[in-house]
Amino acid sequence: MLHPVVLSGGSGSRLWPLSRQNQPKQFLSLIGDHSLFQETLLRANALPDTGAPVTVCAEDHRFMVGEQLQGIGVANGAIVLEPSARNTAPAIALAALHLVAEDPAATMLVLPADHLIEDVDAFRDAVARAAVLAEQDWLVTFGITPDYPETGYGYIARGDALGEGGFKVDRFVEKPDLATAESYLAAGTYAWNSGMFLFKAQRYLDELQALAPAILAAARAAYAKANRDLDFIRVGKDEFAASPNDSIDYAVMEKTARAAVVPVSCGWSDIGSWSSLWAVAERDADGNRYEGDVISVDTRDSLVRASDRRMIATIGVEDLVIVDTPDATLVARKDRVQDVKTIVDKLKQAGRQEHLFHRKVYRPWGNYDSIDMGERFQVKRIEVKPGGVLSLQKHHKRAEHWIVVSGVAEVTCDDKVFELRENQSTYIPLGSVHRLRNRGTEPVELIEVQSGSYLGEDDIVRLEDVYGRS
Amino acid sequence: MLHPVVLSGGSGSRLWPLSRQNQPKQFLSLIGDHSLFQETLLRANALPDTGAPVTVCAEDHRFMVGEQLQGIGVANGAIVLEPSARNTAPAIALAALHLVAEDPAATMLVLPADHLIEDVDAFRDAVARAAVLAEQDWLVTFGITPDYPETGYGYIARGDALGEGGFKVDRFVEKPDLATAESYLAAGTYAWNSGMFLFKAQRYLDELQALAPAILAAARAAYAKANRDLDFIRVGKDEFAASPNDSIDYAVMEKTARAAVVPVSCGWSDIGSWSSLWAVAERDADGNRYEGDVISVDTRDSLVRASDRRMIATIGVEDLVIVDTPDATLVARKDRVQDVKTIVDKLKQAGRQEHLFHRKVYRPWGNYDSIDMGERFQVKRIEVKPGGVLSLQKHHKRAEHWIVVSGVAEVTCDDKVFELRENQSTYIPLGSVHRLRNRGTEPVELIEVQSGSYLGEDDIVRLEDVYGRS
Repeated sequence: MLHPVVLSGGSGSRLWPLSRQNQPKQFLSLIGDHSLFQETLLRANALPDTGAPVTVCAEDHRFMVGEQLQGIGVANGAIVLEPSARNTAPAIALAALHLVAEDPAATMLVLPADHLIEDVDAFRDAVARAAVLAEQDWLVTFGITPDYPETGYGYIARGDALGEGGFKVDRFVEKPDLATAESYLAAGTYAWNSGMFLFKAQRYLDELQALAPAILAAARAAYAKANRDLDFIRVGKDEFAASPNDSIDYAVMEKTARAAVVPVSCGWSDIGSWSSLWAVAERDADGNRYEGDVISVDTRDSLVRASDRRMIATIGVEDLVIVDTPDATLVARKDRVQDVKTIVDKLKQAGRQEHLFHRKVYRPWGNYDSIDMGERFQVKRIEVKPGGVLSLQKHHKRAEHWIVVSGVAEVTCDDKVFELRENQSTYIPLGSVHRLRNRGTEPVELIEVQSGSYLGEDDIVRLEDVYGRS
Repeated sequence: MLHPVVLSGGSGSRLWPLSRQNQPKQFLSLIGDHSLFQETLLRANALPDTGAPVTVCAEDHRFMVGEQLQGIGVANGAIVLEPSARNTAPAIALAALHLVAEDPAATMLVLPADHLIEDVDAFRDAVARAAVLAEQDWLVTFGITPDYPETGYGYIARGDALGEGGFKVDRFVEKPDLATAESYLAAGTYAWNSGMFLFKAQRYLDELQALAPAILAAARAAYAKANRDLDFIRVGKDEFAASPNDSIDYAVMEKTARAAVVPVSCGWSDIGSWSSLWAVAERDADGNRYEGDVISVDTRDSLVRASDRRMIATIGVEDLVIVDTPDATLVARKDRVQDVKTIVDKLKQAGRQEHLFHRKVYRPWGNYDSIDMGERFQVKRIEVKPGGVLSLQKHHKRAEHWIVVSGVAEVTCDDKVFELRENQSTYIPLGSVHRLRNRGTEPVELIEVQSGSYLGEDDIVRLEDVYGRS
């Protein structure tokens, strides 16, 4: 059985300000209605004879992963939490250990969560060919047939043909300079290293044992301590942290004698920057890609993305990327978007928040958005998902007013528990123990007006929390 | 006595999105803390021996004018409301009629409200020279000594010297082409027509009688019906509407034998576009003018203006104008900013609001800002000035929750009247007759959460209004 293994890593800096550390690229709907993560899972689950998927993600992203899986109706998958970032080799090892525990013959299709694939038929065909080679104990990597001499990717040089349109890997090569990239393109025997793999789970573990035993040992020790926490599989933190930090390419693929490459041309993109998103997006006759409320005059070859309740007007500009979010707007030359990282670094240095969170912050129970703020008050719009429960909590420095604007909330305030419906309100005095819960089937939306001398997120005493955050 | 007469016209489209029809350029703080209107008054009031100022403005802008005058402590001025826009000749006639009624010998210094003057000493000196000529019954216009061959202004050609550094006007010329403008600059006897004038009020009325009697007749008839409404002088609407629509230049200055020009070089600018604001603003070593929270990488010769609680990041751009407001952001090439009008036209055609109002809307009692909106709710931040009173009103389709976050509000709700202090709230049921008032000395700030099936501004039945709006 083929199990999709989705690696949901990524730091979220390259598509800032839309991507944030707390909400990296894979969770954004960049093209179409679904996020890249959701697209990856939907694409994998649509392959023939696939088993339950495994998602490997960071602790911080667990609720977003859970919510996005729910959003596409995927309920049978495991979500393995990486307690720390140790690159792909250990992450894939956790997924392999999880799979062989249930099915020693499991085959795994490893997919980064943040890539775009336009030609699903070509992808499906490549997976079928790779599956045959994996059955023959090859560790298969998918090599993207290059369209142009990209200098930002690693390349794979192919060796002897193996049948099924696959080849032995001759060697992996680092990001080339332009002349080298051009020679690769001309040679026709090089492919981009896509980070997608297909192999038997046990075979991968055996290779790790031979080539990177410290990684396997750490992953085994961590997985031995695994326990289920809600939908999540949480592994041993210290054990995992002991693993070397290494990629599957370095740790295994470049060293094994059994590396194979299946070339594929499937409209693949890693959307590594705003300019590459522009390049793959549908554009109008002037070369523009507009999202949201945009009014333009004489604008060319630009990507313009407005956010909710806000419009963007452009006049006489070309080759720009303009991306608006509720708290930050980026205006960059399209060929300079790699410097978004410089902006993110400046935000870090200044101790700011705009690279970490959006104004709207996701929580396990739903989300909140700080819609206004003054000297001694803050206004939040809070959404509680059906079944969502905020922690039982109190504040030392603020009182809160809650006005429900849709759904039915259950409110706990000290010794009282009561329902609050649309157009009803209540008051949570300073120091009182309170909780908000949605027992209904529709989301609860409410407006919270905080009033007090200090309004930081850290003035919260959690007395009880169903999500294990107290 | 010299009376400043400030003409506060202007449609508010050229500096969109910062300027709006409801808040045109003269009311914006573009350079420094005060608005151009306030700067104009402060500059005029600082001249020696000046009498009470007269402001002529549109009906729609009366509360903003009142508030801005209060903001700079000007309490002795008259505010004459133009019931309709009839250009400068009739507007100045109203001010002249008002002045001669109190002081037949009044001299008036006519100043557009939306111009910038950097060298106040040079301006003061020119006014002193012009005052001498006005005493000799000249109608003096101030001619700005050109720095460069501007093609966007009209020019004044000077004739014989009159003493005091003034000259007879030889002729007024329309906006020239570049070659002509260059010849004017080379000749050294041409000046830009600034729209500033100094003359005896009675002398202006006499000239109107001789040269444009229909304008004078209409202004007289309108002024005869004048009545005080709060701080405002409201003239006869139909009578004023009967006036020809004409500028002082066409109606009087180009025809009179007594036109004089006082050349002056005082760092004058009419800030007719974002690029001219950039040109007069202080800039950093890379030629950038930043306002608000801006982070930039390799940015040159640009004007970037962030709005409250929002940051703008720029990378690798040059010669751009980026202006952010809560509901609209402009990104334009600096040499294309005249096309802001095209955007405003598109907004008009689409029946939108972003050219009319800011998200924050000014009212006689204070202002409100629509900070969030959903399917069946809206959240507003409302500020009521000391002494401010909203109309006694009711709504057919919405209920309201009010939470006071600063100051002390007096609330009327049906037959009850009560105080609401910081961190107190109340509920205004659908259909109940209510009013909000600030009897204190500090502004009242409150958050209003509206809940209902329809939330438009037109669901308001005004039963009583101290500002005459019911």
